[in-house]
Amino acid sequence: MSDEFSRIARYFAPLAGKEGRGLTDDAAVLTPPPGRDLVLTVDQMLEDVHFLTRDDPALIARKLLRRNLSDLAAMGAVPLGYLLTTALPEGVGEDWLAGFSQGLAQDQKFFNISLFGGDSSSSRGKISLSATLIGHTAPGAALSRNGARAGDGIWVTGTIGDAALGLRARLGELEDPSGFLTARSLLPEPRMGLALAGLVSAAIDISDGLVQDLGHMCQGAGLSAVIRAGLVPASAAAAACGAGALEARLTGGDDYELLLAVPPGNGEALKAACGDLPVTKIGMFQAGAGVHVLNDSGAMLQFTRPGWRHF
Amino acid sequence: MSDEFSRIARYFAPLAGKEGRGLTDDAAVLTPPPGRDLVLTVDQMLEDVHFLTRDDPALIARKLLRRNLSDLAAMGAVPLGYLLTTALPEGVGEDWLAGFSQGLAQDQKFFNISLFGGDSSSSRGKISLSATLIGHTAPGAALSRNGARAGDGIWVTGTIGDAALGLRARLGELEDPSGFLTARSLLPEPRMGLALAGLVSAAIDISDGLVQDLGHMCQGAGLSAVIRAGLVPASAAAAACGAGALEARLTGGDDYELLLAVPPGNGEALKAACGDLPVTKIGMFQAGAGVHVLNDSGAMLQFTRPGWRHF
Repeated sequence: MSDEFSRIARYFAPLAGKEGRGLTDDAAVLTPPPGRDLVLTVDQMLEDVHFLTRDDPALIARKLLRRNLSDLAAMGAVPLGYLLTTALPEGVGEDWLAGFSQGLAQDQKFFNISLFGGDSSSSRGKISLSATLIGHTAPGAALSRNGARAGDGIWVTGTIGDAALGLRARLGELEDPSGFLTARSLLPEPRMGLALAGLVSAAIDISDGLVQDLGHMCQGAGLSAVIRAGLVPASAAAAACGAGALEARLTGGDDYELLLAVPPGNGEALKAACGDLPVTKIGMFQAGAGVHVLNDSGAMLQFTRPGWRHF
Repeated sequence: MSDEFSRIARYFAPLAGKEGRGLTDDAAVLTPPPGRDLVLTVDQMLEDVHFLTRDDPALIARKLLRRNLSDLAAMGAVPLGYLLTTALPEGVGEDWLAGFSQGLAQDQKFFNISLFGGDSSSSRGKISLSATLIGHTAPGAALSRNGARAGDGIWVTGTIGDAALGLRARLGELEDPSGFLTARSLLPEPRMGLALAGLVSAAIDISDGLVQDLGHMCQGAGLSAVIRAGLVPASAAAAACGAGALEARLTGGDDYELLLAVPPGNGEALKAACGDLPVTKIGMFQAGAGVHVLNDSGAMLQFTRPGWRHF
């Protein structure tokens, strides 16, 4: 294994934008876009928590960026670039780093971002990764998860539950003949670039699971949510898993679709703003507290756990 | 152990500035100081690499912030705030978190910074921490490690080698009757707030070791460096370790003093800018390549390794 400095020069310096100064300085320098607010977020990906040791390093890299990009999408921000940390145990070799940096390069190009800086370390334990993403919005225009109002519709982009079922498929617990669910688990599609400002009163990305993330919105607004399980959009592959997959779909994390609070009358404008991306109304915010999931006959469903949380 | 969300509410939300929005949103929102450049840096601290499992969590927290603050100091930047990641194995309890967050609070107050956001996760391995620090400078005024010119003097702040000897003391390999060396290893003093712009042509903080970090400056400028070992300032406690400690002092990391390239004639102004903080000329940049360390009779010293690097 090459040493720290030659690894940085070989795999990471080519990814650096001008802010990164060739990754030879102690820090990055960013001239912020004039008159804009900056939006900053950080997420980790840890071996055996967020990915499996055998996973393709290029997909790990792209998911690391995409999970963070999804946080920017939920704030209505345009991404600029990122700082990266890697902590790698001795057994991780050049092949892994080559794949990992190729994955970063691919998604940097796709999302028009560059590497600003980072820190690489050895690890005495498992692989540990993080990315800090920096984006921008018009001043005061950043969305919040806490702004929902009673009477707002609850809408979601895309389809819900694919990633949770995909993780089961990757663990051999489920058939995934098309590979669609597996792909949704390995490589989310952050919903960047939707012009949501003025159309929604609150937004969050679904990372912990629909029920739990909806609970965060309720808590932030002091409201309850009522959704119809039958209205929650399923992909064809998820639908093929049958009714028994409902709880996994509604409480499983990693979808990175957007969950939106939409004032009455804004639904058509929201659909127009989302273009080809389907967006579906699944319920409504009301006075009260908690998330209530109803079946087709209006009875309340109970789940054993609302979603992903770290102990 | 409480769950992720109650831990965030209890230990970290009280540390958040307005940019952190109570740590309930997907990202932080920062209105940059108008007309300033932003300076961004990230550093990790990993169990068994950067700290020992038994170390006081408050000191771990403060060193995490200070290592990053030192990077801002080396760029001439004023700190604003930070994002934090924590990955904690199941055995890490409330006491550890209470101490860790108290350490953050203490240094937030001391350095006038606040928590902007973060990510907390469980870990299947060891404790893994990172902080992304955000600061600002006048436009175009950020310092670089790469600007040294032939004829510039090589200067250092403070005393060199205390932290490396302090680590040996913590490992029981060395006597440290005053506790000074141990303290310098556990809690560095980043050299914030020195008005270095215009006085120095290059700056770096000594994190990997004097010889190695000086090598980075040489490489960035296409120059060589000649320093006199006898001129490198030693604390009384380090001097008491004797001549046998010289290599450890000059190649050991974690001092977080500043290493500066100072054009001829700027020495007195530099001393004035540093006020009570001693600053010492130890050598000169010249044409050529590499770092040459001379003893008092002008003979070149050889070290077995120049400084800290990760495999």
